Amino acid sequence: MYPWKTLLTPNRDLPSPVYLQLANAIIQEISAGRIQAGQKLPGTRALAELIGLNRKTVIIAFEELAAQGWIELQPSRGAFVSEKLPLDRYRPIGEPASREVNAETAFELEIDTSLPILKEKPQNSINFTDGTPDVRLAPMDSLYRYCRFFARTRMTTRYLTYGDVQGEIHLRTELANYLNKTRGLRCNPENVFISRGSQMSIFLSLKALLKPGDVVIVGETSYPVVDQVVEHLGGRLIRVPVDEDGMQVEAIRKICHKETVRAVYLTPHHHFPTTVTLCADRRIQLLEYAHIHRFAIIEDDYDYDFHYTSSPMLPMASLDRSGSVIYLGSFSKIIAPAVRIGYLIAPLNMIEALNRLRKIIDRQGDSVMERALAEMLREGEIQRHIKKSLKVYRSRRDYLCQKLTSELGEWITFTPPDGGMAIWANFSPQIDLPKLASQLREKDIILDIQHNWLKEGNGIRLGFASVTETEIDHIITHMKQLISAEYKISAKMGI
Amino acid sequence: MYPWKTLLTPNRDLPSPVYLQLANAIIQEISAGRIQAGQKLPGTRALAELIGLNRKTVIIAFEELAAQGWIELQPSRGAFVSEKLPLDRYRPIGEPASREVNAETAFELEIDTSLPILKEKPQNSINFTDGTPDVRLAPMDSLYRYCRFFARTRMTTRYLTYGDVQGEIHLRTELANYLNKTRGLRCNPENVFISRGSQMSIFLSLKALLKPGDVVIVGETSYPVVDQVVEHLGGRLIRVPVDEDGMQVEAIRKICHKETVRAVYLTPHHHFPTTVTLCADRRIQLLEYAHIHRFAIIEDDYDYDFHYTSSPMLPMASLDRSGSVIYLGSFSKIIAPAVRIGYLIAPLNMIEALNRLRKIIDRQGDSVMERALAEMLREGEIQRHIKKSLKVYRSRRDYLCQKLTSELGEWITFTPPDGGMAIWANFSPQIDLPKLASQLREKDIILDIQHNWLKEGNGIRLGFASVTETEIDHIITHMKQLISAEYKISAKMGI
Repeated sequence: MYPWKTLLTPNRDLPSPVYLQLANAIIQEISAGRIQAGQKLPGTRALAELIGLNRKTVIIAFEELAAQGWIELQPSRGAFVSEKLPLDRYRPIGEPASREVNAETAFELEIDTSLPILKEKPQNSINFTDGTPDVRLAPMDSLYRYCRFFARTRMTTRYLTYGDVQGEIHLRTELANYLNKTRGLRCNPENVFISRGSQMSIFLSLKALLKPGDVVIVGETSYPVVDQVVEHLGGRLIRVPVDEDGMQVEAIRKICHKETVRAVYLTPHHHFPTTVTLCADRRIQLLEYAHIHRFAIIEDDYDYDFHYTSSPMLPMASLDRSGSVIYLGSFSKIIAPAVRIGYLIAPLNMIEALNRLRKIIDRQGDSVMERALAEMLREGEIQRHIKKSLKVYRSRRDYLCQKLTSELGEWITFTPPDGGMAIWANFSPQIDLPKLASQLREKDIILDIQHNWLKEGNGIRLGFASVTETEIDHIITHMKQLISAEYKISAKMGI
Repeated sequence: MYPWKTLLTPNRDLPSPVYLQLANAIIQEISAGRIQAGQKLPGTRALAELIGLNRKTVIIAFEELAAQGWIELQPSRGAFVSEKLPLDRYRPIGEPASREVNAETAFELEIDTSLPILKEKPQNSINFTDGTPDVRLAPMDSLYRYCRFFARTRMTTRYLTYGDVQGEIHLRTELANYLNKTRGLRCNPENVFISRGSQMSIFLSLKALLKPGDVVIVGETSYPVVDQVVEHLGGRLIRVPVDEDGMQVEAIRKICHKETVRAVYLTPHHHFPTTVTLCADRRIQLLEYAHIHRFAIIEDDYDYDFHYTSSPMLPMASLDRSGSVIYLGSFSKIIAPAVRIGYLIAPLNMIEALNRLRKIIDRQGDSVMERALAEMLREGEIQRHIKKSLKVYRSRRDYLCQKLTSELGEWITFTPPDGGMAIWANFSPQIDLPKLASQLREKDIILDIQHNWLKEGNGIRLGFASVTETEIDHIITHMKQLISAEYKISAKMGI
């Protein structure tokens, strides 16, 4: 005998009416095999009393079930679970706990495990990242004030319906002006593609460019995210050395004589991770080689706005007359990682390729926020935020440089970067950085370790922009304690 | 003689200092070949006077250019453009207009033209879409109020730094509860993946599932976006007939005996575009076949929340015990297309595959807006919005049905849909729908024509949710005028 009393606890706070809750509960039980095909249901009056419902509610539920084909109402005999349902053939495998049901697909699924799983960083820890802005400075209140303004439908509904796959036109226009004025980049709104940050710009560019087996050149040390995308797309990575003048462009030329190179990815303003700047003559050489050998230069210029001592060179894109450069920038690095808006400047045919791809991937960006950012650029709010951040980051850079020298000078060598948001620090080779990182993690301090950087001079990026001077003190104190306890003698000898 | 006077009009309103504007102008001219390698620059005093600058500004600019390697400062002789720059080899091709420079890449680019270009709809037109919500009802003000709240860094910075690739945990938790309560879906937050709308859910699911040549089954008429994704990924589409009970599941079984089927995509609640509901026994059969033949069911349940007469059947995902169903829903269809937040419920291994893929595509969603939506679900604001919309949409559906019958009954047949946001209308075969659409476009009325639907009974979706009764009057009046002028006799004879 089925325990009808326990079938349902009606909940009148739910949006779905109670008769529907009842009908759905019965369907659940039928499909789970606990109520059998052909089985007679209790009478509407009896069931109503058992569950504590109005009889009319049960009648409507039964009518609903009959309309959907789950039960048959036989006049004067009552309600029966439909015989036509192929329940005898549909055998659910027992009734496992909800968690187990949901663990594995019934169909085969091959997971691309070359793509890494992102581990979330613990909350309330101090993050010595690879270089992110300080979100505590971010003009979020202003940004969302503008969002509310542009989402007001009394004004227009255009930002709330489907928008332009290439990005909101005001933002493309303001960006074209801004990039032209601040870095001599020649582009008009048609050349601007608004993405959801550099990650999407990198993915879409490489997706548009690469066929399996195509060669992409990166630095010996480089932004690991690009490696992942190239490998996922079946491309072939070739690495060239990076010295104090940036990527060795001569090495790229030599590769071009042996291989058909499709693209070179680089961050010429500050090489990632070592922060060196690509010198002027290499820039011109690289543009020339790109033109001759017909490869794309993907210039990721994520930290152009932050420079402290010398002023920045113009981006390579500003010197490109032939259409070789795909230029990337991002508001995630200017405002906050959570602001998922980046941009890409490229010739029109590249923009067309990106538009077509993007439509099937995520249709469009966030039109309201794009419109809001356009207004903040037009009003100069973004520019003021950059100036403010620049001042704060410069003093944090100076402070961290000073602290690294005075407290850890015996174990670390580094060159103060003239811009950007991180210092590239080479640790004494004896120091086991992964071990140090796990010891610091116990003290709620997070270091970003990239294993292939360790080969390059046992190096790590120390992002100074997002940490206050007090936090820098805290981090350096702990690092010094841990290092001096473990490497008292050997490390000093090693230098 | 180079016209130095015109080199630069200094602009003190720009964020970049004037000395840098000057340096960058000179770099532009050098790289464009207008100032030659080895050429002598004017003296700092002379140049300062020509442009109207302080001499010190020119000196700093020259020092900057020398530091970057563009010029050489020879004591007592002056400044010379560096000979080391390989300018003689780098020959920009003339100096074409900015628009031309940006038209074509120097590298080869093959565009996947099977992917369609999205045409933007004209502003200020009335849109008889294929079925979208009325954004004029959308609780945007409330949404952005919550966004501002959660973006306040006094409370926490967690929503502004990098977030969870799978989606913000509060939203995943609230959604798991909501889906469980409203449609009996068994899932926990680990089974929920937050996407940027159904488009991304479809793309990522198929990307995770398909290898080139894999078979995906869709309806004879179906959501065209899915076809595009399958073809782009190199999958093979097989179409099965759809009748008044939905997709013919028996046809799917037969295909499974000949082919290895990887996935079936469908919208069982209301088949897209014809709005029919998949009947109960076919649902159970399809689940059974999926289990036996190990294919995935992609259940796109985008309009579950909108039903007017009978109450909705439970989603197939609620009946799935074996882990065959990937379940899709979206807030774009509940609130507004500009709210780019959708969700996907699947077994854990599928979620893992999606997380890994998504990381390299766009890293994460909008954590702040996800957190805001979670709060609106918890507070019941979304539920109240659905109730309100439902009432409005129901009366618009009734009004449109009545108008279609009374005004266009001679040329149109349709079955009033029991839910959703659109009516599937079959026009008399004589009526040239693309022509009608272009005539209506001149009157600022937009119809969504899908050419392969025309073969299926000359059909079109008329989205009633987003148009007021006044707008319906306006549209129907124009349609009637145009149709009766053109098809006065023939169409009536054709019926």
